[in-house]
Amino acid sequence: MDTFFNPRSVAVIGASNSPFNLGATICRCMNEYSKWDGTVYAVNRKGEDVFGCKGCRAVTDIEGDVDLAVIITPAGVVPDFVEQCAAKGIRRIIIESSGFSEGGEEGRALQRRIDETAREHGIRVMGPNCLGVLNAANGFSCFYGVQPDNHHEFLGSEGGSVSFIIQSGGIVVIVLESFLMDVVKASKIVSIGNKSDIDEADMLEYFEQDDSTQVVAMYLENIKHGRKFIETARKMKKPVLVFKVGRTSEGARAAMSHTAGMANNDAVFDMACRQAGVIRVNAISELHSLPKMFTHMPPLKGRRIAVFTNSGAFGGITADLLVQSGLEMARLSKDTQEKLSRTGQIFNASNPIDLGPAISMQTFLEIFDILLSSDEVDGLLPVPSLWHPMVIEAIVELVKKCHHYGKPAAIYTPNAVHKTVNYRSKYQVPLFESPEEAVRALKVSYQNTLNLAMKQGLDGLHALLPGGGEKTCAGMG
Amino acid sequence: MDTFFNPRSVAVIGASNSPFNLGATICRCMNEYSKWDGTVYAVNRKGEDVFGCKGCRAVTDIEGDVDLAVIITPAGVVPDFVEQCAAKGIRRIIIESSGFSEGGEEGRALQRRIDETAREHGIRVMGPNCLGVLNAANGFSCFYGVQPDNHHEFLGSEGGSVSFIIQSGGIVVIVLESFLMDVVKASKIVSIGNKSDIDEADMLEYFEQDDSTQVVAMYLENIKHGRKFIETARKMKKPVLVFKVGRTSEGARAAMSHTAGMANNDAVFDMACRQAGVIRVNAISELHSLPKMFTHMPPLKGRRIAVFTNSGAFGGITADLLVQSGLEMARLSKDTQEKLSRTGQIFNASNPIDLGPAISMQTFLEIFDILLSSDEVDGLLPVPSLWHPMVIEAIVELVKKCHHYGKPAAIYTPNAVHKTVNYRSKYQVPLFESPEEAVRALKVSYQNTLNLAMKQGLDGLHALLPGGGEKTCAGMG
Repeated sequence: MDTFFNPRSVAVIGASNSPFNLGATICRCMNEYSKWDGTVYAVNRKGEDVFGCKGCRAVTDIEGDVDLAVIITPAGVVPDFVEQCAAKGIRRIIIESSGFSEGGEEGRALQRRIDETAREHGIRVMGPNCLGVLNAANGFSCFYGVQPDNHHEFLGSEGGSVSFIIQSGGIVVIVLESFLMDVVKASKIVSIGNKSDIDEADMLEYFEQDDSTQVVAMYLENIKHGRKFIETARKMKKPVLVFKVGRTSEGARAAMSHTAGMANNDAVFDMACRQAGVIRVNAISELHSLPKMFTHMPPLKGRRIAVFTNSGAFGGITADLLVQSGLEMARLSKDTQEKLSRTGQIFNASNPIDLGPAISMQTFLEIFDILLSSDEVDGLLPVPSLWHPMVIEAIVELVKKCHHYGKPAAIYTPNAVHKTVNYRSKYQVPLFESPEEAVRALKVSYQNTLNLAMKQGLDGLHALLPGGGEKTCAGMG
Repeated sequence: MDTFFNPRSVAVIGASNSPFNLGATICRCMNEYSKWDGTVYAVNRKGEDVFGCKGCRAVTDIEGDVDLAVIITPAGVVPDFVEQCAAKGIRRIIIESSGFSEGGEEGRALQRRIDETAREHGIRVMGPNCLGVLNAANGFSCFYGVQPDNHHEFLGSEGGSVSFIIQSGGIVVIVLESFLMDVVKASKIVSIGNKSDIDEADMLEYFEQDDSTQVVAMYLENIKHGRKFIETARKMKKPVLVFKVGRTSEGARAAMSHTAGMANNDAVFDMACRQAGVIRVNAISELHSLPKMFTHMPPLKGRRIAVFTNSGAFGGITADLLVQSGLEMARLSKDTQEKLSRTGQIFNASNPIDLGPAISMQTFLEIFDILLSSDEVDGLLPVPSLWHPMVIEAIVELVKKCHHYGKPAAIYTPNAVHKTVNYRSKYQVPLFESPEEAVRALKVSYQNTLNLAMKQGLDGLHALLPGGGEKTCAGMG
């Protein structure tokens, strides 16, 4: 599987100098504005060079070795090119063209020819009807349509630690654009399309072994092999988030015409996620907003949350959200409340803790220590207004203290989103954009703790739940 | 009530030149950087002028008439100042100070003294524990803490058409900041605090008569007089949105310590909203994101929605969201599908309609006309990527066509939020920031149609539901 992400040489089949040629944008991306330094060949009717990539009329005309073929031609000629690849000895193919099993009987016949050739020669196929792969660490990408300007922003740095498995090109673009505004960056992205061969379970298995992947996030329109999916996911120690379309029959019908899967019964899928220890998310946006809770914070190991805010309204709002999500408002003992009151700037020391309007840095730090060191508290939900630059500096310290004490905080700053986004990027702290998102982050962190415990057996589960052992993961739906 | 929003002369009691004096920021706001041109007096111990406002030692020392008093002093001296106001003949008072019924028995005793004086002299009181009022049309505001820079952005223009009733200062700030990024602007904002006299029902009654208010949005921590609230809201023809904290007992407890209300049973409140024809929203953000569906689009009069998108994934995602919200995917006849196919750039003409990646302006306009003129469709959910400036120009035309045909579109452009926000401000079109938000906008528009029909009697309801009359508003929860 690693060859897909780290090839030394690639043939882009269908790349020419015709106007609007998608293969040409792939050649350009690989050769001109990524740091990946492998060799690229362009296969087209005229055998012409494309953006500096050597041109050939047929795959078999290429002189050097080819690790990977990327096919982006009309569907009708794809089976012939797959045969050329087989003859050339290529064992990894990404088919980006559409018009196969999602496109009626004619498309299904083409797909069968491809499957037969691949099986016969031991070729692994990604797609068809996909964008292929992107590897932020080495800069390799065969996505078409990514603008040069953005490419550097997406891939220019060292890459992040979240890998994405996405069954839709459109969603890939949304995830890419999210990186411009968040602390989360991708390690690898794979767009798996119709999944004629490589499916989500194969990718999960790969990402579990991949050192640069800490979290996996998936967008799926269907599950191909339910049993394989559950068995693979159950073995994973890394958090797996999934958004699946098709909760209703209308949604499932729409998805079928898109990437040609069998519609799965949604209740069955839901059950499969629970058995597999996979976290189902409620919106596309959660695929990029929630992973930072795993990459930038320790895990939430219990459900008792302490809220503190300088807006009394958010005390009530977050209490509602926490309780509705299955978490709990931590009950603070008289001793803890007295410690908080002694900081001198607290209106209300019971949870939710109401801070005065003008808390000093020193008081913030004292509150963090009191709450994070308390065995009455498993995690924090801080809701401080960004009224002064000192507040963001206090948040930077809070993130350090969370790691020190091994307890997480899901931080929401109730100001206009543009401030949150700017501060988040500038200070590289995991700020959430709404109280709903912050509570969801705490919930999925705790759900992952329960999932890991389930995978380790029930003994592990009870050990993880001081005072909360009577409830099980069933309550975390 | 109008005197609160259009006073000619105001006394700010407690405004002095001490450092961090909140009354001084109110004087400055009124006198220096708003366009409101009334007279302001500053009442303080030394009788000193504050930011150009004439100083007096007592309210009774003021020579001219005073329409409105704004009190922002320690709670203990407020009753004495209320008596001074009564002696001076002032009949409208805003008490911004806190420390009354939300602050224990001592505070409740102070509140009782104020109530007695007010009753005796026929004085209407807003607050205590509030920010008072803001009127965008004339620039009058007694909010403290609003920065001069922002004041112009919030109030500089002519003002908008949404009025807000908000029982929390912190939420006022969030709503104010939302105007920086959206097409919705405030007409009037009122922060009602502990509601010792003027409550949400009084304000609803005023805003129903107020010509510059089209929509009312409320944040409430409690309802003071349930019967009065229901009766007033039922008489309203303008849409009313409400977010109420306290869905859980923990949330209600937190709200009680904030603005001192009785906790209301949430199920009872929910029932009251249904009876009153008030739309309950699910998040603070919906108070500022949803009103544009009323101010910038015609109402949704049926539940049949046509989706069109150039991202196949969003066809499925939006179909799920629409059906889960109680709306329906419109069933397009063969005739309509053929008309759509004849535009020449459609992948899939059944609903959700899958557009090719590079639709022309002309094709966009043809699709809008076909769908909006069809009696199979009540409203649109367009999900076009902003891949080219032409797309936003097509959206500008779509808004015009929606008004022409009298059917709404909730538009979501699946690109990074910063693009949506920029385009929305630049072109003044009502773009939503997520597919969830767009579907919520359609749902609340339809819910308002059902509410109006309920208020007009069931005959009206059936007339509004072509083919959908078997379902009632109970399904729209």
